[in-house]
Amino acid sequence: MTLDSLVQLIRSRKSCLIVGLDTEVEKLPGHLKKAPDGALYFNQQIIDATADLCVGYKINTAFYESRGIPGWDCLEKTLRHIPEGMLRIADAKRGDIGNSSRHYARAFFGTYAFDAVTVSPYMGADSIEPFLDYPGKWTILLGLTSNSGSRDFQLKECASGPLYLEVIRKATGWGSPDQLMFVAGATHPVQVGKIREAAPDYFLLIPGIGAQGGDIEKISRFGRNRNGGLLFNVSRNIIYASDGRDFGERAREVAQGYVNQMGHSLPE
Amino acid sequence: MTLDSLVQLIRSRKSCLIVGLDTEVEKLPGHLKKAPDGALYFNQQIIDATADLCVGYKINTAFYESRGIPGWDCLEKTLRHIPEGMLRIADAKRGDIGNSSRHYARAFFGTYAFDAVTVSPYMGADSIEPFLDYPGKWTILLGLTSNSGSRDFQLKECASGPLYLEVIRKATGWGSPDQLMFVAGATHPVQVGKIREAAPDYFLLIPGIGAQGGDIEKISRFGRNRNGGLLFNVSRNIIYASDGRDFGERAREVAQGYVNQMGHSLPE
Repeated sequence: MTLDSLVQLIRSRKSCLIVGLDTEVEKLPGHLKKAPDGALYFNQQIIDATADLCVGYKINTAFYESRGIPGWDCLEKTLRHIPEGMLRIADAKRGDIGNSSRHYARAFFGTYAFDAVTVSPYMGADSIEPFLDYPGKWTILLGLTSNSGSRDFQLKECASGPLYLEVIRKATGWGSPDQLMFVAGATHPVQVGKIREAAPDYFLLIPGIGAQGGDIEKISRFGRNRNGGLLFNVSRNIIYASDGRDFGERAREVAQGYVNQMGHSLPE
Repeated sequence: MTLDSLVQLIRSRKSCLIVGLDTEVEKLPGHLKKAPDGALYFNQQIIDATADLCVGYKINTAFYESRGIPGWDCLEKTLRHIPEGMLRIADAKRGDIGNSSRHYARAFFGTYAFDAVTVSPYMGADSIEPFLDYPGKWTILLGLTSNSGSRDFQLKECASGPLYLEVIRKATGWGSPDQLMFVAGATHPVQVGKIREAAPDYFLLIPGIGAQGGDIEKISRFGRNRNGGLLFNVSRNIIYASDGRDFGERAREVAQGYVNQMGHSLPE
Protein backbone atom coordinates (compact mmCIF):
# COMPACT_ATOMS: atom_id res chain seq x y z
CA MET A 1 0.00 0.00 0.00
CA THR A 2 1.48 3.38 -1.00
CA LEU A 3 1.49 6.49 1.18
CA ASP A 4 -1.02 8.12 -1.19
CA SER A 5 -3.42 5.17 -0.98
CA LEU A 6 -3.21 5.21 2.80
CA VAL A 7 -3.97 8.95 3.01
CA GLN A 8 -6.79 8.50 0.49
CA LEU A 9 -8.24 5.63 2.53
CA ILE A 10 -8.16 7.70 5.73
CA ARG A 11 -9.78 10.61 3.91
CA SER A 12 -12.57 8.51 2.45
CA ARG A 13 -13.35 6.72 5.73
CA LYS A 14 -12.91 9.87 7.87
CA SER A 15 -11.13 7.49 10.20
CA CYS A 16 -7.57 6.59 11.11
CA LEU A 17 -8.60 3.71 13.34
CA ILE A 18 -6.77 0.39 13.31
CA VAL A 19 -8.54 -2.46 15.08
CA GLY A 20 -6.15 -4.78 16.94
CA LEU A 21 -7.05 -8.44 16.81
CA ASP A 22 -5.44 -9.52 20.09
CA THR A 23 -7.67 -12.55 20.19
CA GLU A 24 -7.35 -14.86 23.19
CA VAL A 25 -9.45 -18.00 23.36
CA GLU A 26 -9.96 -17.47 27.12
CA LYS A 27 -11.56 -14.07 26.47
CA LEU A 28 -13.96 -15.12 23.71
CA PRO A 29 -17.70 -14.82 24.34
CA GLY A 30 -18.92 -17.90 26.23
CA HIS A 31 -20.63 -19.55 23.27
CA LEU A 32 -17.37 -19.43 21.22
CA LYS A 33 -14.85 -20.51 23.85
CA LYS A 34 -15.17 -24.21 23.08
CA ALA A 35 -16.28 -23.96 19.44
CA PRO A 36 -13.81 -25.34 16.92
CA ASP A 37 -12.40 -22.32 15.08
CA GLY A 38 -14.08 -20.06 17.66
CA ALA A 39 -11.24 -17.53 17.47
CA LEU A 40 -11.42 -17.42 13.67
CA TYR A 41 -15.20 -16.97 13.67
CA PHE A 42 -14.81 -14.24 16.29
CA ASN A 43 -12.19 -12.40 14.18
CA GLN A 44 -14.32 -12.68 11.06
CA GLN A 45 -17.35 -11.26 12.86
CA ILE A 46 -15.28 -8.41 14.31
CA ILE A 47 -13.91 -7.62 10.85
CA ASP A 48 -17.37 -7.73 9.25
CA ALA A 49 -18.74 -5.45 11.97
CA THR A 50 -16.00 -2.81 11.77
CA ALA A 51 -14.49 -2.85 8.25
CA ASP A 52 -16.19 0.36 7.08
CA LEU A 53 -15.18 2.25 10.26
CA CYS A 54 -11.45 1.59 10.27
CA VAL A 55 -8.57 1.64 7.77
CA GLY A 56 -6.92 -1.60 8.78
CA TYR A 57 -6.32 -4.39 11.25
CA LYS A 58 -3.34 -5.20 13.42
CA ILE A 59 -2.76 -8.86 14.15
CA ASN A 60 -0.52 -9.37 17.18
CA THR A 61 1.36 -12.58 16.44
CA ALA A 62 1.85 -13.39 20.15
CA PHE A 63 -1.79 -14.37 20.56
CA TYR A 64 -1.63 -16.78 17.61
CA GLU A 65 1.87 -18.16 18.15
CA SER A 66 0.92 -19.24 21.68
CA ARG A 67 -1.54 -21.72 20.14
CA GLY A 68 1.05 -23.32 17.85
CA ILE A 69 0.09 -24.41 14.35
CA PRO A 70 -3.69 -24.00 14.90
CA GLY A 71 -2.91 -20.40 15.85
CA TRP A 72 -0.94 -19.77 12.66
CA ASP A 73 -3.77 -21.33 10.69
CA CYS A 74 -6.22 -18.93 12.39
CA LEU A 75 -3.88 -16.00 11.65
CA GLU A 76 -3.69 -16.94 7.97
CA LYS A 77 -7.46 -17.27 7.58
CA THR A 78 -8.09 -14.07 9.55
CA LEU A 79 -5.68 -12.24 7.25
CA ARG A 80 -7.54 -13.50 4.18
CA HIS A 81 -10.83 -12.22 5.61
CA ILE A 82 -9.61 -8.60 5.76
CA PRO A 83 -11.11 -6.76 2.77
CA GLU A 84 -8.76 -5.92 -0.10
CA GLY A 85 -7.31 -2.41 0.10
CA MET A 86 -7.19 -2.19 3.90
CA LEU A 87 -3.91 -2.01 5.85
CA ARG A 88 -2.90 -5.39 7.27
CA ILE A 89 -0.33 -5.01 10.05
CA ALA A 90 1.62 -7.89 11.59
CA ASP A 91 2.42 -6.71 15.11
CA ALA A 92 5.38 -9.02 15.46
CA LYS A 93 8.15 -6.84 16.95
CA ARG A 94 10.76 -8.96 15.20
CA GLY A 95 14.40 -8.05 14.61
CA ASP A 96 17.60 -10.09 14.28
CA ILE A 97 20.94 -9.95 12.45
CA GLY A 98 20.54 -9.26 8.73
CA ASN A 99 20.58 -12.87 7.56
CA SER A 100 17.82 -13.80 10.02
CA SER A 101 15.76 -10.62 9.58
CA ARG A 102 15.60 -11.40 5.86
CA HIS A 103 13.67 -14.52 6.81
CA TYR A 104 11.32 -12.60 9.10
CA ALA A 105 10.66 -10.13 6.28
CA ARG A 106 9.95 -13.04 3.96
CA ALA A 107 7.58 -14.55 6.52
CA PHE A 108 5.37 -11.48 6.82
CA PHE A 109 5.68 -9.95 3.34
CA GLY A 110 6.06 -13.13 1.29
CA THR A 111 4.58 -16.20 2.96
CA TYR A 112 1.86 -14.08 4.61
CA ALA A 113 0.50 -11.10 2.68
CA PHE A 114 0.83 -8.41 5.33
CA ASP A 115 1.31 -4.78 4.26
CA ALA A 116 3.26 -3.80 7.36
CA VAL A 117 5.22 -5.35 10.20
CA THR A 118 6.39 -3.93 13.53
CA VAL A 119 10.14 -4.25 14.14
CA SER A 120 12.31 -3.65 17.23
CA PRO A 121 15.28 -1.28 16.77
CA TYR A 122 17.64 -2.73 19.39
CA MET A 123 19.85 -4.59 16.90
CA GLY A 124 20.29 -1.62 14.56
CA ALA A 125 20.47 -1.00 10.82
CA ASP A 126 21.17 -4.47 9.43
CA SER A 127 18.24 -5.88 11.41
CA ILE A 128 15.82 -3.35 9.82
CA GLU A 129 17.06 -3.11 6.23
CA PRO A 130 15.72 -6.49 5.05
CA PHE A 131 12.17 -5.29 5.81
CA LEU A 132 12.74 -2.03 3.92
CA ASP A 133 13.81 -4.00 0.84
CA TYR A 134 10.18 -4.88 0.02
CA PRO A 135 8.64 -2.23 -2.27
CA GLY A 136 5.13 -1.18 -1.32
CA LYS A 137 5.48 -2.66 2.18
CA TRP A 138 5.75 -0.82 5.47
CA THR A 139 8.23 -1.25 8.30
CA ILE A 140 6.87 0.10 11.59
CA LEU A 141 9.77 0.66 13.96
CA LEU A 142 9.28 0.80 17.72
CA GLY A 143 10.08 4.32 18.86
CA LEU A 144 8.45 4.95 22.23
CA THR A 145 6.04 2.25 23.35
CA SER A 146 2.98 2.72 25.55
CA ASN A 147 3.87 0.29 28.36
CA SER A 148 5.41 1.01 31.75
CA GLY A 149 8.65 -0.69 30.64
CA SER A 150 9.20 2.10 28.09
CA ARG A 151 10.74 4.01 31.01
CA ASP A 152 13.50 1.44 31.51
CA PHE A 153 15.51 2.15 28.36
CA GLN A 154 13.57 4.13 25.73
CA LEU A 155 13.34 7.23 27.90
CA LYS A 156 16.98 6.99 29.09
CA GLU A 157 19.07 10.05 28.33
CA CYS A 158 21.86 9.30 25.88
CA ALA A 159 24.58 11.62 24.58
CA SER A 160 22.29 13.52 22.23
CA GLY A 161 18.87 13.05 23.82
CA PRO A 162 16.63 10.24 25.00
CA LEU A 163 17.12 6.84 23.37
CA TYR A 164 13.72 6.82 21.62
CA LEU A 165 14.65 10.07 19.80
CA GLU A 166 18.05 8.66 18.83
CA VAL A 167 16.16 5.74 17.30
CA ILE A 168 13.77 8.00 15.39
CA ARG A 169 16.53 10.31 14.14
CA LYS A 170 18.79 7.54 12.98
CA ALA A 171 15.99 5.55 11.37
CA THR A 172 14.76 8.47 9.25
CA GLY A 173 18.06 8.00 7.42
CA TRP A 174 17.26 4.35 6.73
CA GLY A 175 13.81 4.62 5.19
CA SER A 176 11.55 7.25 3.66
CA PRO A 177 8.04 8.26 4.83
CA ASP A 178 6.48 6.00 2.19
CA GLN A 179 8.06 2.84 3.62
CA LEU A 180 8.72 3.52 7.30
CA MET A 181 6.45 4.44 10.24
CA PHE A 182 7.13 4.66 13.98
CA VAL A 183 5.31 3.37 17.03
CA ALA A 184 4.59 6.24 19.43
CA GLY A 185 2.61 5.39 22.56
CA ALA A 186 -0.44 7.48 23.43
CA THR A 187 0.59 7.33 27.08
CA HIS A 188 3.42 9.81 26.26
CA PRO A 189 1.68 12.76 24.53
CA VAL A 190 4.50 15.30 24.96
CA GLN A 191 7.03 12.86 23.54
CA VAL A 192 4.72 12.19 20.59
CA GLY A 193 5.25 15.87 19.83
CA LYS A 194 9.02 15.41 19.94
CA ILE A 195 8.78 12.41 17.63
CA ARG A 196 6.68 14.51 15.25
CA GLU A 197 9.39 17.22 15.22
CA ALA A 198 12.09 14.63 14.50
CA ALA A 199 10.06 12.88 11.80
CA PRO A 200 7.66 15.47 10.34
CA ASP A 201 6.49 13.45 7.33
CA TYR A 202 6.26 9.96 8.78
CA PHE A 203 3.12 8.15 9.86
CA LEU A 204 2.94 7.22 13.54
CA LEU A 205 1.15 4.13 14.78
CA ILE A 206 -0.31 5.03 18.16
CA PRO A 207 -1.05 2.26 20.66
CA GLY A 208 -2.19 2.92 24.21
CA ILE A 209 -5.62 4.35 23.37
CA GLY A 210 -8.41 2.48 25.11
CA ALA A 211 -7.39 -0.05 27.76
CA GLN A 212 -4.16 1.86 28.49
CA GLY A 213 -5.86 5.25 28.85
CA GLY A 214 -4.34 7.44 26.08
CA ASP A 215 -6.34 10.38 24.69
CA ILE A 216 -7.01 10.76 20.95
CA GLU A 217 -7.57 14.53 20.90
CA LYS A 218 -4.46 15.23 22.93
CA ILE A 219 -2.32 13.04 20.68
CA SER A 220 -3.79 14.78 17.63
CA ARG A 221 -2.65 18.14 18.99
CA PHE A 222 0.90 16.86 19.46
CA GLY A 223 1.21 14.45 16.57
CA ARG A 224 -0.85 15.41 13.54
CA ASN A 225 0.79 16.45 10.25
CA ARG A 226 -0.72 17.58 6.92
CA ASN A 227 -1.46 13.94 5.95
CA GLY A 228 -2.96 13.30 9.33
CA GLY A 229 0.06 11.10 9.90
CA LEU A 230 -1.61 9.17 12.70
CA LEU A 231 -3.00 5.67 12.99
CA PHE A 232 -4.71 4.91 16.28
CA ASN A 233 -4.77 1.28 17.30
CA VAL A 234 -7.43 0.03 19.70
CA SER A 235 -7.57 -3.67 20.52
CA ARG A 236 -9.18 -4.97 23.71
CA ASN A 237 -11.69 -2.15 24.27
CA ILE A 238 -13.23 -2.84 20.87
CA ILE A 239 -13.00 -6.58 20.41
CA TYR A 240 -14.04 -7.46 23.97
CA ALA A 241 -16.73 -4.77 24.26
CA SER A 242 -19.22 -7.53 25.01
CA ASP A 243 -18.79 -11.14 26.03
CA GLY A 244 -22.24 -12.05 24.74
CA ARG A 245 -23.63 -12.91 21.33
CA ASP A 246 -23.86 -9.20 20.53
CA PHE A 247 -20.05 -8.84 20.54
CA GLY A 248 -19.97 -7.70 16.90
CA GLU A 249 -22.60 -4.97 17.32
CA ARG A 250 -21.02 -3.75 20.53
CA ALA A 251 -17.54 -3.74 18.92
CA ARG A 252 -18.99 -1.58 16.14
CA GLU A 253 -20.53 0.88 18.59
CA VAL A 254 -17.29 1.23 20.52
CA ALA A 255 -15.28 1.60 17.30
CA GLN A 256 -17.70 4.32 16.15
CA GLY A 257 -17.15 6.10 19.45
CA TYR A 258 -13.40 6.24 18.82
CA VAL A 259 -13.85 7.36 15.21
CA ASN A 260 -16.07 10.21 16.43
CA GLN A 261 -13.04 11.56 18.33
CA MET A 262 -10.78 11.56 15.26
CA GLY A 263 -11.97 14.74 13.56
CA HIS A 264 -8.73 16.54 14.41
CA SER A 265 -6.52 13.63 13.39
CA LEU A 266 -7.43 13.46 9.70
CA PRO A 267 -5.56 14.80 6.64
CA GLU A 268 -5.97 18.50 5.81
CA MET B 1 17.03 -27.11 33.20
CA THR B 2 18.63 -25.84 36.41
CA LEU B 3 21.93 -23.95 36.62
CA ASP B 4 23.51 -26.97 38.32
CA SER B 5 22.38 -29.35 35.57
CA LEU B 6 23.75 -27.01 32.92
CA VAL B 7 27.15 -26.75 34.63
CA GLN B 8 27.17 -30.52 35.13
CA LEU B 9 26.36 -31.08 31.46
CA ILE B 10 29.18 -28.78 30.36
CA ARG B 11 31.57 -30.52 32.74
CA SER B 12 30.68 -34.00 31.53
CA ARG B 13 30.87 -33.10 27.82
CA LYS B 14 33.96 -30.89 28.24
CA SER B 15 32.12 -28.60 25.86
CA CYS B 16 30.06 -25.44 26.02
CA LEU B 17 29.11 -25.56 22.35
CA ILE B 18 25.59 -24.80 21.18
CA VAL B 19 24.83 -25.76 17.58
CA GLY B 20 22.57 -23.26 15.82
CA LEU B 21 20.03 -24.79 13.48
CA ASP B 22 19.66 -21.84 11.08
CA THR B 23 18.34 -24.15 8.44
CA GLU B 24 17.50 -22.64 5.04
CA VAL B 25 16.05 -24.85 2.33
CA GLU B 26 18.14 -23.00 -0.29
CA LYS B 27 21.35 -23.96 1.50
CA LEU B 28 20.61 -27.66 2.01
CA PRO B 29 22.86 -30.21 0.32
CA GLY B 30 21.70 -30.71 -3.30
CA HIS B 31 20.07 -34.11 -2.73
CA LEU B 32 17.85 -32.66 0.06
CA LYS B 33 16.80 -29.36 -1.51
CA LYS B 34 13.72 -30.79 -3.18
CA ALA B 35 13.06 -33.69 -0.83
CA PRO B 36 9.83 -33.45 1.16
CA ASP B 37 10.87 -32.78 4.75
CA GLY B 38 14.43 -32.19 3.52
CA ALA B 39 15.05 -29.54 6.20
CA LEU B 40 13.79 -31.84 8.95
CA TYR B 41 15.92 -34.77 7.76
CA PHE B 42 18.89 -32.40 7.58
CA ASN B 43 18.31 -31.17 11.16
CA GLN B 44 17.92 -34.70 12.46
CA GLN B 45 21.17 -35.79 10.82
CA ILE B 46 23.01 -32.74 12.18
CA ILE B 47 21.67 -33.49 15.67
CA ASP B 48 22.62 -37.17 15.46
CA ALA B 49 26.11 -36.24 14.26
CA THR B 50 26.84 -33.65 16.96
CA ALA B 51 24.75 -34.47 20.06
CA ASP B 52 27.67 -35.85 22.12
CA LEU B 53 29.89 -32.85 21.26
CA CYS B 54 27.60 -30.01 22.30
CA VAL B 55 25.33 -29.14 25.23
CA GLY B 56 22.36 -27.90 23.27
CA TYR B 57 20.78 -26.58 20.10
CA LYS B 58 19.57 -23.12 19.19
CA ILE B 59 16.66 -22.99 16.78
CA ASN B 60 16.35 -19.56 15.15
CA THR B 61 12.62 -19.13 14.56
CA ALA B 62 13.15 -16.79 11.57
CA PHE B 63 14.26 -19.65 9.34
CA TYR B 64 11.15 -21.68 10.17
CA GLU B 65 8.60 -18.87 10.31
CA SER B 66 9.53 -17.82 6.78
CA ARG B 67 8.12 -21.14 5.53
CA GLY B 68 4.77 -20.71 7.27
CA ILE B 69 3.03 -23.72 8.82
CA PRO B 70 5.36 -26.32 7.22
CA GLY B 71 8.20 -24.43 8.88
CA TRP B 72 6.58 -24.56 12.32
CA ASP B 73 5.92 -28.25 11.78
CA CYS B 74 9.61 -28.75 10.99
CA LEU B 75 10.57 -26.73 14.09
CA GLU B 76 8.34 -28.86 16.30
CA LYS B 77 9.70 -32.16 14.96
CA THR B 78 13.29 -30.90 15.13
CA LEU B 79 12.74 -29.93 18.76
CA ARG B 80 11.45 -33.41 19.55
CA HIS B 81 14.56 -34.95 18.00
CA ILE B 82 16.92 -33.18 20.43
CA PRO B 83 17.96 -35.70 23.10
CA GLU B 84 16.43 -35.32 26.55
CA GLY B 85 18.59 -33.34 28.98
CA MET B 86 20.18 -31.04 26.39
CA LEU B 87 19.50 -27.28 26.31
CA ARG B 88 16.87 -26.34 23.72
CA ILE B 89 17.02 -22.63 22.89
CA ALA B 90 14.39 -20.78 20.86
CA ASP B 91 16.29 -17.89 19.29
CA ALA B 92 13.18 -15.79 18.83
CA LYS B 93 14.15 -12.30 20.04
CA ARG B 94 10.57 -11.66 21.10
CA GLY B 95 9.34 -8.91 23.43
CA ASP B 96 6.09 -6.97 23.70
CA ILE B 97 3.92 -5.35 26.39
CA GLY B 98 3.25 -7.65 29.33
CA ASN B 99 -0.07 -9.02 28.14
CA SER B 100 1.43 -10.00 24.76
CA SER B 101 4.75 -11.24 26.13
CA ARG B 102 2.79 -13.64 28.33
CA HIS B 103 1.60 -15.26 25.12
CA TYR B 104 5.11 -15.44 23.65
CA ALA B 105 6.30 -17.09 26.86
CA ARG B 106 3.44 -19.55 26.63
CA ALA B 107 4.34 -20.28 22.99
CA PHE B 108 7.94 -21.25 23.69
CA PHE B 109 7.70 -22.69 27.22
CA GLY B 110 4.21 -24.18 27.03
CA THR B 111 3.11 -25.02 23.50
CA TYR B 112 6.70 -25.82 22.48
CA ALA B 113 8.98 -27.41 25.07
CA PHE B 114 11.97 -25.10 24.81
CA ASP B 115 14.21 -24.60 27.85
CA ALA B 116 15.26 -21.08 26.90
CA VAL B 117 14.17 -18.20 24.69
CA THR B 118 16.01 -15.08 23.54
CA VAL B 119 14.22 -11.81 24.32
CA SER B 120 14.84 -8.20 23.25
CA PRO B 121 15.14 -5.64 26.07
CA TYR B 122 13.87 -2.55 24.23
CA MET B 123 10.39 -2.58 25.81
CA GLY B 124 11.64 -2.96 29.38
CA ALA B 125 10.64 -4.86 32.52
CA ASP B 126 7.03 -5.79 31.81
CA SER B 127 8.04 -7.28 28.45
CA ILE B 128 10.60 -9.59 30.13
CA GLU B 129 8.85 -10.63 33.34
CA PRO B 130 6.34 -13.04 31.76
CA PHE B 131 9.26 -15.18 30.56
CA LEU B 132 10.86 -15.16 34.02
CA ASP B 133 7.63 -16.47 35.53
CA TYR B 134 8.33 -20.01 34.25
CA PRO B 135 10.29 -22.00 36.84
CA GLY B 136 13.16 -24.05 35.42
CA LYS B 137 13.14 -22.06 32.16
CA TRP B 138 15.73 -19.57 30.92
CA THR B 139 15.30 -16.08 29.56
CA ILE B 140 18.25 -15.00 27.42
CA LEU B 141 18.22 -11.23 27.13
CA LEU B 142 19.99 -9.44 24.28
CA GLY B 143 22.84 -7.43 25.77
CA LEU B 144 25.40 -6.68 23.08
CA THR B 145 24.82 -8.49 19.80
CA SER B 146 27.48 -9.57 17.31
CA ASN B 147 26.20 -7.75 14.22
CA SER B 148 27.32 -4.42 12.76
CA GLY B 149 24.01 -2.83 13.82
CA SER B 150 25.00 -3.30 17.48
CA ARG B 151 26.90 -0.01 17.04
CA ASP B 152 23.72 1.94 16.24
CA PHE B 153 22.15 1.89 19.71
CA GLN B 154 23.64 -0.78 22.00
CA LEU B 155 27.05 0.92 22.13
CA LYS B 156 25.58 4.44 22.51
CA GLU B 157 26.75 6.27 25.62
CA CYS B 158 23.89 6.96 28.01
CA ALA B 159 23.96 8.84 31.31
CA SER B 160 25.66 6.04 33.26
CA GLY B 161 27.51 4.13 30.53
CA PRO B 162 26.78 2.47 27.21
CA LEU B 163 23.22 1.24 26.63
CA TYR B 164 24.15 -2.47 26.60
CA LEU B 165 25.60 -2.12 30.13
CA GLU B 166 22.50 -0.26 31.33
CA VAL B 167 20.50 -3.21 30.05
CA ILE B 168 22.70 -5.78 31.82
CA ARG B 169 22.77 -3.82 35.11
CA LYS B 170 19.03 -3.25 35.21
CA ALA B 171 18.17 -6.79 34.17
CA THR B 172 20.28 -8.40 36.91
CA GLY B 173 17.64 -6.90 39.23
CA TRP B 174 14.86 -8.69 37.34
CA GLY B 175 16.13 -12.25 37.31
CA SER B 176 18.70 -14.40 39.06
CA PRO B 177 21.61 -16.32 37.46
CA ASP B 178 19.55 -19.51 37.48
CA GLN B 179 16.84 -18.07 35.23
CA LEU B 180 18.47 -15.30 33.19
CA MET B 181 21.39 -15.23 30.74
CA PHE B 182 22.67 -12.51 28.41
CA VAL B 183 23.66 -12.47 24.76
CA ALA B 184 27.19 -11.08 24.40
CA GLY B 185 28.63 -11.03 20.87
CA ALA B 186 32.07 -12.55 20.29
CA THR B 187 32.86 -9.67 17.94
CA HIS B 188 33.17 -7.39 21.03
CA PRO B 189 35.68 -9.18 23.33
CA VAL B 190 36.53 -6.18 25.54
CA GLN B 191 32.86 -5.48 26.12
CA VAL B 192 32.28 -9.14 27.01
CA GLY B 193 34.68 -8.41 29.89
CA LYS B 194 32.56 -5.44 30.96
CA ILE B 195 29.42 -7.57 30.83
CA ARG B 196 31.17 -10.18 32.98
CA GLU B 197 32.02 -7.49 35.55
CA ALA B 198 28.42 -6.28 35.63
CA ALA B 199 26.97 -9.79 35.83
CA PRO B 200 29.62 -12.02 37.44
CA ASP B 201 27.42 -15.06 38.03
CA TYR B 202 25.31 -15.12 34.89
CA PHE B 203 25.77 -17.36 31.87
CA LEU B 204 26.52 -15.58 28.60
CA LEU B 205 25.37 -16.91 25.25
CA ILE B 206 28.08 -15.95 22.76
CA PRO B 207 27.16 -15.67 19.09
CA GLY B 208 29.57 -14.41 16.45
CA ILE B 209 32.03 -17.33 16.57
CA GLY B 210 32.51 -18.92 13.19
CA ALA B 211 31.03 -17.08 10.20
CA GLN B 212 31.29 -13.72 12.01
CA GLY B 213 34.94 -14.19 13.05
CA GLY B 214 34.89 -14.13 16.89
CA ASP B 215 37.63 -15.92 18.81
CA ILE B 216 36.85 -18.54 21.48
CA GLU B 217 40.09 -18.25 23.46
CA LYS B 218 39.95 -14.47 23.57
CA ILE B 219 36.34 -14.51 24.76
CA SER B 220 37.25 -17.07 27.43
CA ARG B 221 39.90 -14.72 28.79
CA PHE B 222 37.38 -11.87 29.06
CA GLY B 223 34.21 -13.76 29.91
CA ARG B 224 34.81 -16.95 31.87
CA ASN B 225 33.62 -17.32 35.47
CA ARG B 226 33.95 -20.19 37.96
CA ASN B 227 31.06 -22.07 36.32
CA GLY B 228 32.53 -21.46 32.90
CA GLY B 229 29.56 -19.17 32.38
CA LEU B 230 29.91 -19.29 28.61
CA LEU B 231 27.88 -20.92 25.86
CA PHE B 232 29.33 -20.54 22.39
CA ASN B 233 26.86 -20.74 19.55
CA VAL B 234 28.03 -21.73 16.08
CA SER B 235 25.50 -22.12 13.32
CA ARG B 236 26.43 -21.83 9.63
CA ASN B 237 30.07 -22.94 9.90
CA ILE B 238 28.96 -26.24 11.40
CA ILE B 239 25.70 -27.08 9.67
CA TYR B 240 26.85 -26.03 6.18
CA ALA B 241 30.37 -27.48 6.50
CA SER B 242 29.63 -29.58 3.42
CA ASP B 243 26.94 -29.36 0.77
CA GLY B 244 27.35 -33.02 -0.12
CA ARG B 245 26.04 -36.26 1.33
CA ASP B 246 28.81 -36.15 3.96
CA PHE B 247 27.29 -33.05 5.60
CA GLY B 248 26.78 -34.84 8.94
CA GLU B 249 30.33 -36.14 9.19
CA ARG B 250 31.78 -32.80 8.16
CA ALA B 251 29.54 -30.96 10.67
CA ARG B 252 30.88 -33.27 13.35
CA GLU B 253 34.50 -32.60 12.40
CA VAL B 254 34.00 -28.84 12.45
CA ALA B 255 32.10 -29.03 15.76
CA GLN B 256 34.96 -31.06 17.23
CA GLY B 257 37.38 -28.38 16.05
CA TYR B 258 35.47 -25.74 18.01
CA VAL B 259 35.20 -27.94 21.11
CA ASN B 260 38.99 -28.43 21.01
CA GLN B 261 39.35 -24.67 21.56
CA MET B 262 37.11 -24.63 24.64
CA GLY B 263 39.53 -25.91 27.26
CA HIS B 264 39.77 -22.48 28.88
CA SER B 265 36.01 -21.89 28.80
CA LEU B 266 34.93 -24.77 31.04
CA PRO B 267 33.94 -24.76 34.74
CA GLU B 268 36.76 -24.81 37.30
